[in-house]
Amino acid sequence: MSCQLCVKNIRYLAGVKKMTDCQGAGEGAKSPMELYESLASQGDEVRALKTAKAEKAEIDAAVQLLLKLKVDYKQLTGQDYKAGSPPSETSVAPENGPATDGADDDDTVNPWNVSTNNAKGVDYDKLIVRFGSSKIDQELVDRIEKVSGQKPHRFLRRGIFFSHRDMHQVLDGYEKHKSFYLYTGRGPSSEAMHVGHLIPFIFTKWLQDVFDIPLVIQLTDDEKYLWKDLSLEDCHRFAVENAKDIIACGFDVNKTFIFSDLDYMGASPAFYRNVVKIQKHVTFNQVKGIFGFTDSDCIGKISFPAIQAAPSFSSSFPQIFKGRKDIQCLIPCAIDQDPYFRMTRDVAPRIGYHKPALLHSTFFPALQGAQTKMSASDANSSIFLTDTPKQIKNKVNKHAFSGGKDTVEEHRKYGGNPDVDVAFMYLTFFLEDDEQLEKIKQDYTSGALLTGELKKLLIETLQPMITQHQEQRKQVTEETVKQFMTPRPLNFNF
Amino acid sequence: MSCQLCVKNIRYLAGVKKMTDCQGAGEGAKSPMELYESLASQGDEVRALKTAKAEKAEIDAAVQLLLKLKVDYKQLTGQDYKAGSPPSETSVAPENGPATDGADDDDTVNPWNVSTNNAKGVDYDKLIVRFGSSKIDQELVDRIEKVSGQKPHRFLRRGIFFSHRDMHQVLDGYEKHKSFYLYTGRGPSSEAMHVGHLIPFIFTKWLQDVFDIPLVIQLTDDEKYLWKDLSLEDCHRFAVENAKDIIACGFDVNKTFIFSDLDYMGASPAFYRNVVKIQKHVTFNQVKGIFGFTDSDCIGKISFPAIQAAPSFSSSFPQIFKGRKDIQCLIPCAIDQDPYFRMTRDVAPRIGYHKPALLHSTFFPALQGAQTKMSASDANSSIFLTDTPKQIKNKVNKHAFSGGKDTVEEHRKYGGNPDVDVAFMYLTFFLEDDEQLEKIKQDYTSGALLTGELKKLLIETLQPMITQHQEQRKQVTEETVKQFMTPRPLNFNF
Repeated sequence: MSCQLCVKNIRYLAGVKKMTDCQGAGEGAKSPMELYESLASQGDEVRALKTAKAEKAEIDAAVQLLLKLKVDYKQLTGQDYKAGSPPSETSVAPENGPATDGADDDDTVNPWNVSTNNAKGVDYDKLIVRFGSSKIDQELVDRIEKVSGQKPHRFLRRGIFFSHRDMHQVLDGYEKHKSFYLYTGRGPSSEAMHVGHLIPFIFTKWLQDVFDIPLVIQLTDDEKYLWKDLSLEDCHRFAVENAKDIIACGFDVNKTFIFSDLDYMGASPAFYRNVVKIQKHVTFNQVKGIFGFTDSDCIGKISFPAIQAAPSFSSSFPQIFKGRKDIQCLIPCAIDQDPYFRMTRDVAPRIGYHKPALLHSTFFPALQGAQTKMSASDANSSIFLTDTPKQIKNKVNKHAFSGGKDTVEEHRKYGGNPDVDVAFMYLTFFLEDDEQLEKIKQDYTSGALLTGELKKLLIETLQPMITQHQEQRKQVTEETVKQFMTPRPLNFNF
Repeated sequence: MSCQLCVKNIRYLAGVKKMTDCQGAGEGAKSPMELYESLASQGDEVRALKTAKAEKAEIDAAVQLLLKLKVDYKQLTGQDYKAGSPPSETSVAPENGPATDGADDDDTVNPWNVSTNNAKGVDYDKLIVRFGSSKIDQELVDRIEKVSGQKPHRFLRRGIFFSHRDMHQVLDGYEKHKSFYLYTGRGPSSEAMHVGHLIPFIFTKWLQDVFDIPLVIQLTDDEKYLWKDLSLEDCHRFAVENAKDIIACGFDVNKTFIFSDLDYMGASPAFYRNVVKIQKHVTFNQVKGIFGFTDSDCIGKISFPAIQAAPSFSSSFPQIFKGRKDIQCLIPCAIDQDPYFRMTRDVAPRIGYHKPALLHSTFFPALQGAQTKMSASDANSSIFLTDTPKQIKNKVNKHAFSGGKDTVEEHRKYGGNPDVDVAFMYLTFFLEDDEQLEKIKQDYTSGALLTGELKKLLIETLQPMITQHQEQRKQVTEETVKQFMTPRPLNFNF
């Protein structure tokens, strides 16, 4: 799991140096479609020069560039460039990671890089089309309400969880008393967690409560070791520290298993067996297409996707599922993690397992705006779980990008724009009352509500929320962490 | 570990189709040194052309070739070409596996393929040069005798273990009361084991006895699952069955830990941590150069070498070495396994560990001759550990390739050729008495000993040996296997 909910996530930022030798990633890297277009126009150029009987040196230089582009193209897409055949969406990595990022717009969404030029954030409707997932429409939200018997969580009501795979199938089974389990995770790249990191956990806790089902939470400390310049010990320590923040979200210890990969791999032959099964059924060509790995990447990165895939299968947790291999898995996660699970869903039937279902969330915006980076190393890019009420107040007032007008007079006259206003976006995530949120939106749009007033509302929402989180985290003892992280049966009968 | 001791091993036979798409494998591939030399002379060529102010087209063509060679060099060695810096013997893949097989002769030696056109078998002196290892000379044999206080094993006296890395360093330490441990292994590809498979175990037991040191034996059931069309369950079962034959060699349960990867990976966080450390420090380029992997190989194969490397470090067995990371490892194995350990030795200093030392054996010939294949699926290609005395007699008489003459008269007159005679080769492996062996050689060469008589001597050597093995294997209970295969402290103080 990567950090998941940042517009550009922590791994990307901290690992930016590493990423420079990762083709297709990082600033300035071309998408397959951009490369394809460069190639096509360079081909035209060469032909034009030849037709015009240009200087040999000039033609040679143009041919050299053409050849270089072809090599880049092959390396990026795993395919040979063919004039007239743009990179297809159904190639090895149909709509996966680097192979198609930015193919049809400016948004880049993969586990290591999420970026957009749009102040409103990523275009999620386009993403659904590109990734081949399904929109969470009103019908599905209504059905979740009917099946669970609970008012849908605000993240569902407001389209924060906006996309899914096979959720109807999960509900079909649940209605027939076939239970399922939840799987989510986090990449523990530092001790610092911000409010955005809580999104999948807040939602997963709600799912656990309303469906009364077990949950496994993977902390990919091995992944962080492989990708970042950190020691194994630090990665493992961050996993344990992050577990405390996760536990503070209120998970039921009797229904929740939290594990560090570094620990659980060495504690569960069943987990390793599934990892090996997955590794046998995925080629380097496939992970190259999906994740953009290159020949210069270490073999640990190349084989890691199998480790994030394995918890999608109930047989990875015999202590919980009593050896049953057929319990359906539902994965709530930010949509940047989808490439891992497209791979998992592709492998599943070939090794005799159910495909996991998914619920995808949007990204949590940085204070500076939905198109900028949020980073654990930049304290001002978000609200951290350790921030004091005063820090929260200062950060929101000083750094939250405003959709308001420059002067009070103009604002009163023309109104603000909530679609790009970060304070309003944050309220969408954290203010429970729908009517109040709608009124705020109207008042801000009309100009009745000023930017300072809007920010004050956010501050008053965040301060008690963060304080409460800190209180709850204090209650989490080492003993509690150990309990959550011990492989054991959970209170559940299938 | 592959099957190790067949002239062409089992894995190669089963996987022969796979190997055809192996880059750099097969005839015609250049070694790093040859490529380096081509590059150097091409660089001279370019300079000469420029000095001579040759035609631009001619210079361009020469530059193009130079660039192509540089790309090839980078791909083969994982390093950039530098004029004046030939590929070093300690670089990652100096003369490794497929990249150089057949570069300077007809012998092919790598973990999946051992073949030669020479009836005497592989040219081992050339192999020492190609692999950059050291010959086990009389001085080293004498030193082992002196340090251990024991007569050297016949495998040492007769050059069956013929090559080493850092064995003097191991002895230096031992003389200063710095102990070491042994690591060997087997790839459990079937239940059937033949006498050739016993070679490393017979020798390792001798080393364990004379040096009084701990031993770890890796059964790579995960590897067999990844490479062959077998289920995980079968591979694991083969591991346990093979363990019984290994135990029957007489290992001391108080000093020996035998493990299946599928079990131990899921039982030891320390082992997985070392695997991840190694995986972080080896790139796909490197394993491509060393093992000939391609983009079509599954990610499990690509990352597997780290799993065979990990037991080379004492920290992989905290239960044995009490957390100590600095105990020297000595690996007795057939020389086809050397690529794994060249990789291991390259990684070791970068992750703060000692390089393992090695003792390399020659290959055990098939009954049909030293240049033919021995296979667990061909019952007539070797003596199996389950053969009856009658089967042994029939196989030797019917199938053992003879260096004798066509008629008794001719044989008496011209004598036989023990160098290509398989019965004589087998006696070299199994007949303890040096004088008797020398006399057999002389008599056979002179014609005094007939082929039938030679074969009879072998039959009389093998029958009691195999019967004894079968007796000892019968004594191995499930309980004994469990004891050997349980991670636990061993009787040893470091």
